[in-house]
Amino acid sequence: MVTSANNSNSLPQTVYSMIGSNSVGPITWDDATWILTSSFIIFTMQSGFGLLEAGYISSKNEVNIMVKNVVDVVFGGLSYWMFGFGLSFGDGEYSNPFCGIGYFFVDAPEEMMGILFSTFVFQMSFATTATTIVSGAMAERTKLSAYIIFSFFNTLIYCIPSHWEWASNGFLRTLGMVDVAGAGAVHLVGGVSALVATLILKPRLGRYDNGIKPPPLGNPVSALIGMFMLWWGWLAFNCGSTFGISGGKWKLAAKSAVVTLNGSIGGGAMGILISCIRFKGKYDISYIVNAVLGSLVSITGACAVIHPWEALIVGAIGGALAILSCHILDRLRIDDPVGASSVHGACGVWGLLAVGLFASKDSLENTTMGRSGVFHGGGFYLLGIQLLAVVVITVWSSVLSLVILLILKFTVGLRLSVENELMGADYSEHMIGHDTMVTQMLKDYVNESRETRRETPLSVISGKAGEDNTKNNEKNNMKERNSRVTIRRGSCISRLSYQISRNLLLKHEKVTPINNNEGGIPGQTDEIN
Amino acid sequence: MVTSANNSNSLPQTVYSMIGSNSVGPITWDDATWILTSSFIIFTMQSGFGLLEAGYISSKNEVNIMVKNVVDVVFGGLSYWMFGFGLSFGDGEYSNPFCGIGYFFVDAPEEMMGILFSTFVFQMSFATTATTIVSGAMAERTKLSAYIIFSFFNTLIYCIPSHWEWASNGFLRTLGMVDVAGAGAVHLVGGVSALVATLILKPRLGRYDNGIKPPPLGNPVSALIGMFMLWWGWLAFNCGSTFGISGGKWKLAAKSAVVTLNGSIGGGAMGILISCIRFKGKYDISYIVNAVLGSLVSITGACAVIHPWEALIVGAIGGALAILSCHILDRLRIDDPVGASSVHGACGVWGLLAVGLFASKDSLENTTMGRSGVFHGGGFYLLGIQLLAVVVITVWSSVLSLVILLILKFTVGLRLSVENELMGADYSEHMIGHDTMVTQMLKDYVNESRETRRETPLSVISGKAGEDNTKNNEKNNMKERNSRVTIRRGSCISRLSYQISRNLLLKHEKVTPINNNEGGIPGQTDEIN
Amino acid sequence: MVTSANNSNSLPQTVYSMIGSNSVGPITWDDATWILTSSFIIFTMQSGFGLLEAGYISSKNEVNIMVKNVVDVVFGGLSYWMFGFGLSFGDGEYSNPFCGIGYFFVDAPEEMMGILFSTFVFQMSFATTATTIVSGAMAERTKLSAYIIFSFFNTLIYCIPSHWEWASNGFLRTLGMVDVAGAGAVHLVGGVSALVATLILKPRLGRYDNGIKPPPLGNPVSALIGMFMLWWGWLAFNCGSTFGISGGKWKLAAKSAVVTLNGSIGGGAMGILISCIRFKGKYDISYIVNAVLGSLVSITGACAVIHPWEALIVGAIGGALAILSCHILDRLRIDDPVGASSVHGACGVWGLLAVGLFASKDSLENTTMGRSGVFHGGGFYLLGIQLLAVVVITVWSSVLSLVILLILKFTVGLRLSVENELMGADYSEHMIGHDTMVTQMLKDYVNESRETRRETPLSVISGKAGEDNTKNNEKNNMKERNSRVTIRRGSCISRLSYQISRNLLLKHEKVTPINNNEGGIPGQTDEIN
Repeated sequence: MVTSANNSNSLPQTVYSMIGSNSVGPITWDDATWILTSSFIIFTMQSGFGLLEAGYISSKNEVNIMVKNVVDVVFGGLSYWMFGFGLSFGDGEYSNPFCGIGYFFVDAPEEMMGILFSTFVFQMSFATTATTIVSGAMAERTKLSAYIIFSFFNTLIYCIPSHWEWASNGFLRTLGMVDVAGAGAVHLVGGVSALVATLILKPRLGRYDNGIKPPPLGNPVSALIGMFMLWWGWLAFNCGSTFGISGGKWKLAAKSAVVTLNGSIGGGAMGILISCIRFKGKYDISYIVNAVLGSLVSITGACAVIHPWEALIVGAIGGALAILSCHILDRLRIDDPVGASSVHGACGVWGLLAVGLFASKDSLENTTMGRSGVFHGGGFYLLGIQLLAVVVITVWSSVLSLVILLILKFTVGLRLSVENELMGADYSEHMIGHDTMVTQMLKDYVNESRETRRETPLSVISGKAGEDNTKNNEKNNMKERNSRVTIRRGSCISRLSYQISRNLLLKHEKVTPINNNEGGIPGQTDEIN
Repeated sequence: MVTSANNSNSLPQTVYSMIGSNSVGPITWDDATWILTSSFIIFTMQSGFGLLEAGYISSKNEVNIMVKNVVDVVFGGLSYWMFGFGLSFGDGEYSNPFCGIGYFFVDAPEEMMGILFSTFVFQMSFATTATTIVSGAMAERTKLSAYIIFSFFNTLIYCIPSHWEWASNGFLRTLGMVDVAGAGAVHLVGGVSALVATLILKPRLGRYDNGIKPPPLGNPVSALIGMFMLWWGWLAFNCGSTFGISGGKWKLAAKSAVVTLNGSIGGGAMGILISCIRFKGKYDISYIVNAVLGSLVSITGACAVIHPWEALIVGAIGGALAILSCHILDRLRIDDPVGASSVHGACGVWGLLAVGLFASKDSLENTTMGRSGVFHGGGFYLLGIQLLAVVVITVWSSVLSLVILLILKFTVGLRLSVENELMGADYSEHMIGHDTMVTQMLKDYVNESRETRRETPLSVISGKAGEDNTKNNEKNNMKERNSRVTIRRGSCISRLSYQISRNLLLKHEKVTPINNNEGGIPGQTDEIN
Repeated sequence: MVTSANNSNSLPQTVYSMIGSNSVGPITWDDATWILTSSFIIFTMQSGFGLLEAGYISSKNEVNIMVKNVVDVVFGGLSYWMFGFGLSFGDGEYSNPFCGIGYFFVDAPEEMMGILFSTFVFQMSFATTATTIVSGAMAERTKLSAYIIFSFFNTLIYCIPSHWEWASNGFLRTLGMVDVAGAGAVHLVGGVSALVATLILKPRLGRYDNGIKPPPLGNPVSALIGMFMLWWGWLAFNCGSTFGISGGKWKLAAKSAVVTLNGSIGGGAMGILISCIRFKGKYDISYIVNAVLGSLVSITGACAVIHPWEALIVGAIGGALAILSCHILDRLRIDDPVGASSVHGACGVWGLLAVGLFASKDSLENTTMGRSGVFHGGGFYLLGIQLLAVVVITVWSSVLSLVILLILKFTVGLRLSVENELMGADYSEHMIGHDTMVTQMLKDYVNESRETRRETPLSVISGKAGEDNTKNNEKNNMKERNSRVTIRRGSCISRLSYQISRNLLLKHEKVTPINNNEGGIPGQTDEIN
């Protein structure tokens, strides 16, 4: 509320943020209301990511991926409280352009309590989001124990770029980089880590045996509900990033909401259009979902500094980019089950560059530090800085992800064993049997062929996953071991999930069932030998 | 926050809304916080509508209905940004009692940014809701391509009545009509459009072949979760409609919350009671869901101007009305799969009239312009105006819906082909095979009978859907074409969905299987000839 | 917003809450924004409880448990509006340390409207939560008609302790008890009622026939999504409990958010650790869910008065306690299907005691009335008061629950009949056939054995549920009645749910199928005789 009409947009200069800079941190309880409410809504995005990922993958891993989202909050949150926030926003004596120092094991005396704690809660909702992005790319083949450790240290990957961008002495901020709500620090970081993770993990077993066409979504309704939850959460994510509501911030927050909505409209329309053209009047769910989410990522960097009509363009390009880059990754046989690298990585790059192209300076909060983008007569300086940010964030995230993931790979191990991957992580990690028949089938297979397998170390088998040049002696082993496997078909399982499992098993083993009647009658038994 | 005790309820007169009237539009960032937070919560109602509708219909269309909810935001949002908001709230030179002119392709200079953008975001959340209401009534038989165009132009149907009701120069507002949160402009508009759409589309194939009893809900848990999401979103919908929190608005917002909750309590109790009586101690889910939602619609118009105990009565009558009108529509063989016409249309009428009966004037924001309803000594003027509003909104919505839908029907076509409807829109529009067996069965059926069908134009067949007077020659065609159809029963599908599909197929074809053992053992095959 | 820097933390003394005490009730619209927004988010916890409970139990009861959550809002809300709020916060002439008197059938004149209605909405969101806790413990065997009556009167159990704790003249508050967000008045009350209910109801049929190992979760993804929804709702629950945002309250709200998050991190990490140790590297979903929720309950009492690092400890202990107490209850053969007694009861006790151990006094709002806990040099006074609160709340809740439930048991009856329980409440109460086969099987069973059953009153049978000492003559009855029961196995049902139903049926009847091939081929039929 305003004290009088003439100072409604100017804040008392004696009250300032103690964190980072004058323009960061809540100053009044009005700001705190905005920031805390936004945080609460942003946390619901965890539910959204969980449902989205559970909807994309096969049902034999859906519980496992939800647990990974729990782990992101628990262990990612723990490390963010311990050292992540301090490395991002610590303003102690040794704080420098590369990282902050201070506020470790976050606590606050009464006079700092409001500002520090509300800032921390908001930032933590961002940090756990960045961690969660990676979980999708690692789906269906990563050991939960390794993921727990990864999610703890993933904070390190996130917190440093967020210092560069948002702390008052961060070097990118000093140079004039603009990233309103984290296209770089959250999405590009998450997307690059996701790409590195999927490269190290290698594709899921049999993913590319039948060409690059993606497997059907495990549960399209879940995927769409997850997308919806992310969509509405994104409004709080982008609008809350004004980091307050007082002064001119409420105007930028309102603008951010319109820009965010328009961005998603552009992306959604583009996704529907591309699908309609490519599939001749059919509407592919993953195209729609990826386009909407890709456009939301694209608009994240510039949400407070571009016009609504520009948002339509930025979003539409982002939507197309998400779809295209998913396709390119699949052509390169890089298996990212939910398209996290594309949606968050490629669109994160576009989101940062879009600022350099479309940004207009504002006099309300001086978000762009007086600079404008190429299309608004600001020249190429801002675009250059944004490009620099893309490069340094990509290098940082990929190198650090690589180090952490390689250490994990050669210590606790990253990837599930072949048996566990085939049986599904829900069974192997959580003792949940989705469909007794397939589980039984696979248990039989594992038990009955255990003797023959003894000669073939599992690492050899799993190392071959997704590759065509299976050695001859391995092939022979496979044939031998399958001589007694009976696959009972048709049962109380999701038919799709069953067929995928079955195909995977068959392809992986390079054997063909004698009687391959795909549309067969449930209750039948066909013998493989 | 208050500057001092004595002006806590009066706003500085120099600060006023630039949109519409003194009582519309946020004045301070406090108002903006309230409006934007409410908007973010209202958008979650899209998820609620999606789940509700997906839960009501058969599972072979559940993904399709979710996509229609996406389309509502994408294309409905696009047109609302382009011209909807301008026609509703434009205050340009040519703005008149019938429609606004101005603010097309919404953008704002810095000084207008806060007010205009936050108003737009809030109104857009309303506009997409009005569009989404119709999607339920069109479920299971509408082409997505036609729906995309419809959702774009549906904005036209919505935006004009909202000008009449809420713009400062709208003719209904000038006359003194009161509709706090859109019982008329949102729900009656949506409900009437839904009724027109379902009349034009005709019933789903075979819907009334076995009498008027509704088919079982496809997924009752989804329907209930959707109802819950709508319930909590409705709190923001009604309370946010004070359109600010400063001055006396926070008191009306708090009152609206209590009235909304009490209304839903009345409706829920009534739904449970009716179900318990009619079904002798059984509790029908659609009765409960429709009663709760119907009561929420009923309370929407009067939420800030009636007493909590009156809300119980208004809600209870609304709940009964929703159930009763669903039943009447079914008796008239008007097939509205989710009851949108009843819940939003019939209860929308009641919601507007309830204002004329129960409203009390308030001195806080003068919501009723000094008038009261019949039961509070205000005489019949207000009730008369509300009745007038019912008439003009109904006429407007029905005529414009009719025009748009008929144009669509005779150009791109509204209804799915018979094959696509039987196979389900998830398969035919989104390439998603829910249950391989039924899909296979239907594909067989379609392929094998394609020759015979060549003689019968599809339009003839689909035109007959839901009617009893099938011509003899068509019957013969059917019989012939079914001579080789094998229906394999029992498989990895939802039994209910299977039986519905199968019954539909059989009824539609007017043939009877030889061996109709309903509770048959899966794995069996029965031949139809 | 602040009027000037020097009074930003002090409120005008002329503006005070009219409800209860100076520190309760919103004073400005800023407070109202916070309280109402928090309430709206807290209501989403109903959806969370619904999904959580639906995910824990077998699918044949999942719709029924969702309806019970609807009933909690409808009938629990009704009684809270009628007399619950008045007994809690009524400040009329006869209000006393035991209960409030006043504000029955809540309504308010304009000058009280803001404070009274926003307080009521917030408190009602608490009241319906307390009621909902009990629904989980009563799952799978309670008649809905009885539950409706129970949910109406359950308000009585809740509203009195909330007077003791939070009304200005409540006797526990006067003594200095501290319970920031309802570890006692909400969770302990709900947990104790849950325990009493489950003791009166007795275990589900056959629950302990195969030992104490819990049955598998019916839908683990639902359970996890429900947990997520509760988690984010809990932030509003705890932070909203500052009951305002002005003055020093926003600082305590921000602190509460950090403490709540850290508590859940401690609990989640503990749950994952315990599961990993006990199940040798496997991660049990119910361990994770119960530990997270248990830690959130544990932190609820102290969220504004302890340090973040202490929250980790309190949460970790709470998480362990939830798991341990679930196990103990199962060893005692007390069947609480979702662990409500453990998560809310045991952790509610710990949550109250944790205040006595860890609380620090604050000078912002004087939440602890100047006292500190044992570990902060406050001596044992506060811990003693908290212990007293545990005792009196436990006694009150258990006695009143017992009275209400026993009256219900001996009038309308609490428990479903054996047939209805076996068929599932979704079928018997809501006419929903989840899986035709099992339902058919059970209907056959019921019909075919009706004659033989006539000799055995159902009360005898249901009274024996879960007990081992079945009488000989009953056994003989069973054998006879089963002579013609055919169980058709394998069909379009969830295999797990089928097996549970089947095992229940078999165990309950003490007969053994001749051909018990568990992994059998669907489509087979095995005869029991």
